[in-house]
Amino acid sequence: MTTYSTAAAKNNVLTILLGGFFLMQGCTPKQPAETANTTSATDFMYQYSIIDALLAGVFDGNLTLGQLKTKGDFGIGTFNRVDGELIVDQGTVYKVSADGSIHEMPDTDSTSIAFVKFFKADSTYTIKGTTTLDQLEKDLMAALPANELYAIRMKGDFPKLTARAPGAAKKPYPSLKDHLAKEQYLFNLTNTRGVVIGFLLPGYLAKVNVPGFHFHYLTDDHKAGGHIFDFTTNNLTVEIDKIQGYSVELNTNADFDKVSLDKDRQEELKKIE
Amino acid sequence: MTTYSTAAAKNNVLTILLGGFFLMQGCTPKQPAETANTTSATDFMYQYSIIDALLAGVFDGNLTLGQLKTKGDFGIGTFNRVDGELIVDQGTVYKVSADGSIHEMPDTDSTSIAFVKFFKADSTYTIKGTTTLDQLEKDLMAALPANELYAIRMKGDFPKLTARAPGAAKKPYPSLKDHLAKEQYLFNLTNTRGVVIGFLLPGYLAKVNVPGFHFHYLTDDHKAGGHIFDFTTNNLTVEIDKIQGYSVELNTNADFDKVSLDKDRQEELKKIE
Repeated sequence: MTTYSTAAAKNNVLTILLGGFFLMQGCTPKQPAETANTTSATDFMYQYSIIDALLAGVFDGNLTLGQLKTKGDFGIGTFNRVDGELIVDQGTVYKVSADGSIHEMPDTDSTSIAFVKFFKADSTYTIKGTTTLDQLEKDLMAALPANELYAIRMKGDFPKLTARAPGAAKKPYPSLKDHLAKEQYLFNLTNTRGVVIGFLLPGYLAKVNVPGFHFHYLTDDHKAGGHIFDFTTNNLTVEIDKIQGYSVELNTNADFDKVSLDKDRQEELKKIE
Repeated sequence: MTTYSTAAAKNNVLTILLGGFFLMQGCTPKQPAETANTTSATDFMYQYSIIDALLAGVFDGNLTLGQLKTKGDFGIGTFNRVDGELIVDQGTVYKVSADGSIHEMPDTDSTSIAFVKFFKADSTYTIKGTTTLDQLEKDLMAALPANELYAIRMKGDFPKLTARAPGAAKKPYPSLKDHLAKEQYLFNLTNTRGVVIGFLLPGYLAKVNVPGFHFHYLTDDHKAGGHIFDFTTNNLTVEIDKIQGYSVELNTNADFDKVSLDKDRQEELKKIE
């Protein structure tokens, strides 16, 4: 069909996702922690540092991309000095720079914060016709149990997509909000095809990660991408990987112990996401 | 000395802890994530389920104690149905029951929530003379960087110690606050010697774990213990294990997806801790 029906899409989502969940139930071993023991390296999200440290101005970290890739083949984040948007897809780490260019990054480069997983879809569905990011998020929220974590990989055509990338910060580092006020570059992309990489996380991860949806974008021709603000999409394929748990490695950069993480930065986060 | 000096104790804490941290700095490999890769099983805190799920009435879990012991040899938690306080020390899991009795628990028993680590002290200090839990917490807060996680093991004489253990809940399960209002048993222990097991965690773990200090107690003769409310102690030895990160495994019990985790339960938590 060429027209898009919310109800149809939602039913579609519900049917196929629930199918996926039933399958997962059927596959659940009698000893769940055995699952953890054997699959925690692949079924857990791994993150280096926490979002509130980045918001507070901890812009450098000590994790190399080579080390990050041992934790997952899929994910998002940024680089030291907030120098661009980080995307990991199928084991390759890409940088979206402030000028909009895309580069594969060497294992020797480092990140100040990143969220990755070994991606394995538990359920897949397709939306024919056109939809928006806003409608898609509503459908997914309606279909997915709210207390779980999900890695989400989507491929499709994007008639319109708005993304951003930050420029590198100079010391002394400001807050992320103040840095982005001066060093955020917007890209209004039209008629691109590409992959959306990200996560849907519950509210209890506030301060540690980004509650709700958080997506980065990379075009198939590797000529554009960034942190997604909005899009309109056609013929979208959505893969969802339900996550069993998560591991947080604290940032070992000395700045991590120097900032105050007491402040409630949720409003600040919403403004820049 | 037989009298206790706060300043002296604090300096003592500062000196020895900072010594410990410098040592740790000195020991930090050039490739931090290599540390994570090789030591995440032992340098990370592992937890099954999250505290807000327990507060909301998710009183059953699917993790056996045998499986829990593969994640750590030290820690605290509770059992299914909130049937007593859980303590793991030197690889053995103990239950403090509602009647105050202590039992070693079999690997086949299960937990609804637990926080464990393979304990390895980074710094150790001794306080001669008498101090209180309140003063000890003030000294530790002043000495330890606030954004990090710590496992804390303390041994000493306890002229006075107040602890509690809950009785088992019956379905349909209420909130933890409502359950403890009816099924919490207090133990006023005098002149015992034993071990204090617990953690000091930063505020950004709110909703997932207990921010601040959280201690359980077990007497050396294994005749008493529980979740600690207060104590006065003599000749205390304090071992501190600075934690590199943490892993959260979601509770696979069906109730986990049925409760709302949106509510701010921090005040509720303070009332029962």
